[in-house]
Amino acid sequence: MKGRILSGMRPTGSLHIGHLSVLENWVQMQKEYETFFMVADWHALTTAFDDTETLNEKVRDMLLDWLSVGIDPGKSTVFIQSHIKEHAELHLLLSMVTPLSWLERVPTYKDQIQQLGKEGRDINTYGFLGYPLLQAADILVYRADTVPVGEDQLPHLEFSREVARRFNFLYDAHVFPEPQAKLSKLALLPGVDGRKMSKSYHNDISMTEDTEGINKKVRQMVTDPQRIRKDDPGDPEVCVVFTYHKIYNQEELKEIEKDCTAGTIGCVDCKKKLAVKIDGVLAPIREKRRELEKTPDLIDDVIGTGERKAKEAAESTMEKVWKAMGI
Amino acid sequence: MKGRILSGMRPTGSLHIGHLSVLENWVQMQKEYETFFMVADWHALTTAFDDTETLNEKVRDMLLDWLSVGIDPGKSTVFIQSHIKEHAELHLLLSMVTPLSWLERVPTYKDQIQQLGKEGRDINTYGFLGYPLLQAADILVYRADTVPVGEDQLPHLEFSREVARRFNFLYDAHVFPEPQAKLSKLALLPGVDGRKMSKSYHNDISMTEDTEGINKKVRQMVTDPQRIRKDDPGDPEVCVVFTYHKIYNQEELKEIEKDCTAGTIGCVDCKKKLAVKIDGVLAPIREKRRELEKTPDLIDDVIGTGERKAKEAAESTMEKVWKAMGI
Repeated sequence: MKGRILSGMRPTGSLHIGHLSVLENWVQMQKEYETFFMVADWHALTTAFDDTETLNEKVRDMLLDWLSVGIDPGKSTVFIQSHIKEHAELHLLLSMVTPLSWLERVPTYKDQIQQLGKEGRDINTYGFLGYPLLQAADILVYRADTVPVGEDQLPHLEFSREVARRFNFLYDAHVFPEPQAKLSKLALLPGVDGRKMSKSYHNDISMTEDTEGINKKVRQMVTDPQRIRKDDPGDPEVCVVFTYHKIYNQEELKEIEKDCTAGTIGCVDCKKKLAVKIDGVLAPIREKRRELEKTPDLIDDVIGTGERKAKEAAESTMEKVWKAMGI
Repeated sequence: MKGRILSGMRPTGSLHIGHLSVLENWVQMQKEYETFFMVADWHALTTAFDDTETLNEKVRDMLLDWLSVGIDPGKSTVFIQSHIKEHAELHLLLSMVTPLSWLERVPTYKDQIQQLGKEGRDINTYGFLGYPLLQAADILVYRADTVPVGEDQLPHLEFSREVARRFNFLYDAHVFPEPQAKLSKLALLPGVDGRKMSKSYHNDISMTEDTEGINKKVRQMVTDPQRIRKDDPGDPEVCVVFTYHKIYNQEELKEIEKDCTAGTIGCVDCKKKLAVKIDGVLAPIREKRRELEKTPDLIDDVIGTGERKAKEAAESTMEKVWKAMGI
């Protein structure tokens, strides 16, 4: 029997190149697992409850990106979290058996409150405290046994396992498998200015960027600041362009490193090489997207089909939950 | 237009005579309001998540009592909370906009944790902290404008109003009316031993008690402990029997007070008078219940009809909620 995977993304609208490796991982997983991919719109509310006006549009934009990269609604269950009320129901039921202290001690909790506090946003809400529990419900409601995560999310997944164990123990049942981490090695791409890539910093390369856009963004990339003249020797390790070459231009990497260090290739030329490579990666995605956009009902159909499939799986879990609890 | 009332009871199984005045209030409200009466089974989980085995039976038993007293499923929407997932959904959505501090400061919160802690029960859970928010969702999901409460529940209702106001303000919408209290004057009946009446203390008079049972329970009632002999003068103010006479035997009250104080009526005779009165109240309820029990599908039908009506109302509210939030 295939394992079952649950993963999701917050609907941030059209994605950037930094999301690509996550999606490429998903596409791979489609082959080996039964996959559930979720648009986490309720999660988006935990930190941005006051910014929902464009949420709908963002959801659709992101789904188009997913499909363009190769997420296949025929293979995967692609759905919107808020359409499956069972997430909320299981979250509520699990809240009754989850000690408050477990949530208060989730390592990221206080950090994030502080972090967002500095940005002037107050997320000290009941819902934000319960955010890891909503994540647990997302996973457990599909009885997913595997969750692709980064290192930083391991405590959240451990929390989900604890909740699953507690439920199984309290109701003397084996309703929930304990979901295991599938650690993914993801390419960490900085923004063109070297900071974390983020649409709000305007330092991202959108997944739908056209050739001209890509050229422009790559030209903005920050290189070794010590390198003033074209024939100064450069330090590739402090250069954003080189970080990208590592991922998108393996074949020329050694040569570029040598030439940069020797001062025999200028940044302008080095950037041109990269822009071509990135365009080579994004062009087929752009093309696929244009193709998909020709079918206006496509996204509605995907959402509808996903909802039906996700609901069926969630309902089947909830029946087990009710039976175990005797309600 | 009629006002809309939401009220509910936790499913404790068949009710006792102490619940009668609440139900009689409900029966009155059916005439003046659009009434929603809820079996609060999710609420029961906040404090008794580990005791759910008999929950289903308790729900059905309690519903039979409701109908026996005169709750009319033709007039009221009688439903089970857990059947209407929209309660969980709205609870989750409201959790995103509810400051944690509002919940931590609900006056009863710390008291109840301590109280139940003394009884050896740990209810320090995320769900218990969120209990007033679940109550708010219960009320708001039907856009009820009126809630019958006792004095002690006024802070909870104030909390519901605050949440409603915050939602309306944040999303610049008038989705939720601010629910107002309808303070009910309820007869507070002690248990036969003078303590709070509770099935777990075995000091209750069940609403379905037969004549012999009533006689037995009234004989157990605690009277003035200073009164040793039949002709000792008694103090009605410290006598459980007299407390009941106040409610069920207004017409003889003055006479009984006089005779007791003078020592001219013995406790045995005084109790006999009371037992007859209580039997007079409970007999028609018992009879109605026996009648209702002849229709085996009755409770299923009531639950089914109630679910349909409640769901319709809840869905209509949620559409307003989504529209306001833009999701």
